[in-house]
Parts: sequence; C-alpha cells; structure tokens
Amino acid sequence: MKLDYEIFDLGDFSVQSGATLRDCKLAYKTFGTLNAAKDNVILYPTWYSGQHYENEWLVGEGMALDPAKYFIIIPNMLGNGLSSSPSNYPEPYNGPRFPDITAYDNVRAQHKLVTEKFGIEHIRLVTGWSMGALQTFQWGAQYPDMMDLIAPFCGSAKCSRHNFVFLEGVKAALTADAAWNEGWYTSKPARGLRAAARVYAGWGFSQAFYREKLDLEALGYSSLEDFLVAFWEGFFLPKDANNLLTMLWTWQNGDISANEIYKGDFKAALGAIKAKALVMPGQTDLYFPPEDSQFEVANMPNATFLPIPSIWGHFAGGPGTNPADVKWLDDQLKGLLAS
Amino acid sequence: MKLDYEIFDLGDFSVQSGATLRDCKLAYKTFGTLNAAKDNVILYPTWYSGQHYENEWLVGEGMALDPAKYFIIIPNMLGNGLSSSPSNYPEPYNGPRFPDITAYDNVRAQHKLVTEKFGIEHIRLVTGWSMGALQTFQWGAQYPDMMDLIAPFCGSAKCSRHNFVFLEGVKAALTADAAWNEGWYTSKPARGLRAAARVYAGWGFSQAFYREKLDLEALGYSSLEDFLVAFWEGFFLPKDANNLLTMLWTWQNGDISANEIYKGDFKAALGAIKAKALVMPGQTDLYFPPEDSQFEVANMPNATFLPIPSIWGHFAGGPGTNPADVKWLDDQLKGLLAS
Repeated sequence: MKLDYEIFDLGDFSVQSGATLRDCKLAYKTFGTLNAAKDNVILYPTWYSGQHYENEWLVGEGMALDPAKYFIIIPNMLGNGLSSSPSNYPEPYNGPRFPDITAYDNVRAQHKLVTEKFGIEHIRLVTGWSMGALQTFQWGAQYPDMMDLIAPFCGSAKCSRHNFVFLEGVKAALTADAAWNEGWYTSKPARGLRAAARVYAGWGFSQAFYREKLDLEALGYSSLEDFLVAFWEGFFLPKDANNLLTMLWTWQNGDISANEIYKGDFKAALGAIKAKALVMPGQTDLYFPPEDSQFEVANMPNATFLPIPSIWGHFAGGPGTNPADVKWLDDQLKGLLAS
Repeated sequence: MKLDYEIFDLGDFSVQSGATLRDCKLAYKTFGTLNAAKDNVILYPTWYSGQHYENEWLVGEGMALDPAKYFIIIPNMLGNGLSSSPSNYPEPYNGPRFPDITAYDNVRAQHKLVTEKFGIEHIRLVTGWSMGALQTFQWGAQYPDMMDLIAPFCGSAKCSRHNFVFLEGVKAALTADAAWNEGWYTSKPARGLRAAARVYAGWGFSQAFYREKLDLEALGYSSLEDFLVAFWEGFFLPKDANNLLTMLWTWQNGDISANEIYKGDFKAALGAIKAKALVMPGQTDLYFPPEDSQFEVANMPNATFLPIPSIWGHFAGGPGTNPADVKWLDDQLKGLLAS
C-alpha cells in the first residue's frame, strides 16, 4: 500500500526533556509545487490528535491555501501516531516510556524538515488551529526571521491555567480506567477513552451551540446522546491512549518562552515575533477564550486581534466542521496573504 | 451523639419514577423561631452534594436570612447522604437500586415537611444556589400560590443541553473507574472520584478566576496542583459515589414542567410562577450561563434578571467561597425581602 504522505528521518533527535529519539521520524504531506525562488511556502502544523488529512479542509483550489500557488507543508506533530509516537516507536522508548515532547521540539523538527529536506530558507505563512496555533506562535518566536506572516487560530502561545485544568479533567477521565494500566495496556482502554470523549464534549462546543441544537440541526445527529456516542466517542476510540497523553503533555506545557532563547520570559518571546500576525480566537471558545489572545496581541509588535464570530466554540476554527466558519477563516487568510 | 439536625418521616413516599421509598426520611435543619402567624418562613434547599451545614454561610444575625426575624428551614435533598439516599437507605432500594429522584419529588417531600410538620401554609421566600435554585424554581411552579418571593441564584429551571453534557463528563469520569463496579463497590472508587473532581475543577470556576490566580491569591492554595488535590479531590473523596450519581440524575433531569401539572410545557411552567422573582445567575458561570436565565425571566410574569458581577464562575453563588459575592448576594436578598 502506498502511503499518502512522506517520512523525513530526523536521525538522532534530542528533545528538551533530555531523551534522544534515535531514528526519529517526521511524517508530512505536501500540496502544490515549491517554486524556483522557494518563496511560496506555507507551513500548517496539525492539532491535538489530528493527522495531516484532518488539516486538508483548509487547502484547495481557489482557497487561500491554494496548491496552485503555494507549496503547503503539513507536518504531523510528534506523538500523533504518524510521526514518531508512543504507538509506533520501537522499544525501549515505546508506549508510556515515550519522552515528553514540547512545542519547541516539534518546531525544531519541522525546521529541520523545511531546511534540510527542501532547502527552504523563508516561509510565507505559518498557520494552524488549536495546538497548530501553538506551533504557529512557537515558529514565530523560535525562528523570528524566517517568515512573513503567522495566523494562529483558536489557540495560544502559552497554555493558560484554566486550559491546563480542563486538560487535567480529560487526562483524569482517560486514566481512571484500570485497563489503561499506567500506559501498559494490552488492549484499548475503551471506557477511559469514552469518558475522555464525554469530558471533551462539553468543552469543544459552546453553550450557545448546544442551546441552538446545532448538533442536530447543523451536524445531523439524531439526538444529543447520538452526538456524544457517534461524534465524540467515535472521535476518541480509534486513537491510542499514550499518544493522546503525549500530545496532552505537549499542550499543557505549551509556552513559547520555555526554552534557552527566552528562559521563561513570555512577554519577551511574544515581543520577539517579527512576523505580521493575525490572531483569531473563537469568540465562544471555552478553553482558548479571546481574552488570552488579546494579551498576546498586546505584547506582539505587529499583530491584529480578530475573533471568529461564531457560536461553534473551539470548533469554529476546525476541522472544517462549520462551512460558514471555514469561509470566514479562508477570507481572512486570503486578505493576510494579499497584504 | 446528638445530631445537629432533625428527621421528618415521609412515610411511604412514591416518586415520579414509579418506586416507593418506604419509611423515607427527610433531614432538615431550622434556624430561628416560627412566629404565631407562621408568616416568617424562608425555605432554602441544598445544592449538588451539599448538606445543610454547607448552606449556613448565608444565614446569620444581621444578614438577610436572619434567624432573629425568620424561621429558616434547610431541607436536605434526597440522595445527599442525610435525607434518604443510596448510601443510607436499607435493602432492597439501597446503593445503585436507589430510584431516580426528580426535583418534583424533592419539592413534594419538602412541602410535606412544611405543611404537615409545621402547619405552614405560606412561605415568605424560597431561595437556593445551583440545584437549590432548581428546587426554588420548582417550588414556584409546583406550589405557585404558596410563597411571596423566590430568589434562585446560579441555577436554572431546566437543565440546559450543554449543562447536561458537562455532567455527562463528570459521570463518565467517575464511572470509568473499575472499582465503581456499576455501583456495587465495596470500597470507595477513589480514582473515579478524583477524576470527577478534576473534571469539575475546570467548570466550577471561570477562566478569569484561574487567570487571576484566585486559587492562590484569594483562597490561599500553594499551587494549582494543590488546589486540584486539596480543594477539588478533597471535596469529592468523602462523598458516596452512588449518592453523587443520584443527585446528578436529578440535576440532568431538572425541568419544572416535567410533571402532570405542566406536561412538559416549559414556558407554561415558567409563566405559572406567581412569586416575585429575583433571578441571579453568575456573570461568568460556565454551566449556568446568564443567557439561560434571561430566557426564564422573559417567560416569568414577575421576575427580575440580575447577574452576579463576579469572576468566580459558578462559585460566585456559594458556598460562601468569596466574601465579596456573599455580601453582594446578601444585599440583594435584603432588598427583595424588604420589598
């Protein structure tokens, strides 16, 4: 079977937590053609548990991310099951022994891909949803001279304390299942995955989304319980528990200043982002509320704050769930790319 | 040991779900003295998992709920561990066999207490926080001629779909623990209780509460993790899992119109509330957002909408957690009682 994506070998890849992932793999997919000047590059990292094919809703002919114009690279986050992850990495760093991975590590791996594989020195735009937004901010601070534009949406440059607590609930639900067995499960901890899904369900969409019954009226589920089972449990059950926990750790510890460059000075890291930035939180996002984005924008030299006017909560930003939001987002990205 | 509360024997108490709880008990505590005219009565039901002593923060000399003026009755909700509950009811309706209990059942039990035990025919005020607010609305619709005033705060007359989903997450986390054993646990399902606590932690207080670090600055915890363990896990661990699930069912199925009187016509039930009502949602409450209260007030003939101006989320309304909110709430109740 031919894979629909490529693998870049990162070699011996040392991560911030101290481990070295030998023969570490970065899975990615590209769209379009790199032009001779190598100046038509868009980088578009994945989100929590998402894989590159779940980013494709924002890519297409006539859209802002148009493969006819741009060379679009979607790198899969470490831990997402395609790049090196607890589920696919060989012993002894497999399963729950897979090391903690930071956004810094992810972006460093992506930088190697971009520069070493493709010889790209400059990126037109970095953009991403949710944890993809975290990686977008991270790119802006980690390689500030390397891109013109960043467009993080429904995400933050640092995991807020409230967001951290929300994720503690997801983690606690998943790991309350004895079948999880501290990560040494031999079969899927289904009850824990289903519980994590139900915890997530209240956070993913807004109060107004549920009030307006958009799960039924817009998404076509037959009842609220059908939405919880078919959409939410169906979303979590195919995923590997250790992969989810690895990415959750990455998320909870997201902080663009947690590295040798900025030494924890968050404002300094925000201030160092040179790219023109369009920061688009979801107006009704319950875990990335617009107030956190406002703080970020106020501390960035060249940033615009533009909330997504939607009641779809976090899902206003992806993954293509609401066509009206996709259209709005695509329009903003077109405007940004034309600037 | 003398109990600090009284028990009213409800006799054979049939509930909406069809079961009959024989020798059913209603635990309650009173403050102050019933006057000769029996017209100084305030009824103040308990909240999710709370017991009467956790309502006492709103009762005191010089406060609106002043025992020197009023005869204040705090009835414990069925399922809360003091009134008949899974944890204290004898076989065969014990543990997970304890029947589903509605707000209608609770209010009917309280009505028996008030009328049969005390011969009270009229109540000055019914008030309560959270599920206490649900029971307050329920009183207004179930016995509309019986009281002058109602003051539900941080609660609703019908569980919203989003609130239902939030509770699904709490339930799923608790019941993901194999030690729960479908309710037939022989020792405490501690991991599930701790998981439920962590899920609850993100919902109980607002994003702004965590952003401002009020867990540390106002409540004095030593770290976020200390808050999660000492406050949240400490809050859930002493509680019986089946009791929590019984009250959770009551909450999820809260609907003042779900009875023979209103036959599911929610607007009719709201419209039937004759009492002058002061409806006080928390401005930043994540599971009882002000919008739901606005709908209720718009459909009640004599109601005022007055959000609690606080960033303490659901805990703006109780249980005495933030002194400034207690003062604000007490002031509003004083105004209402003086009207």
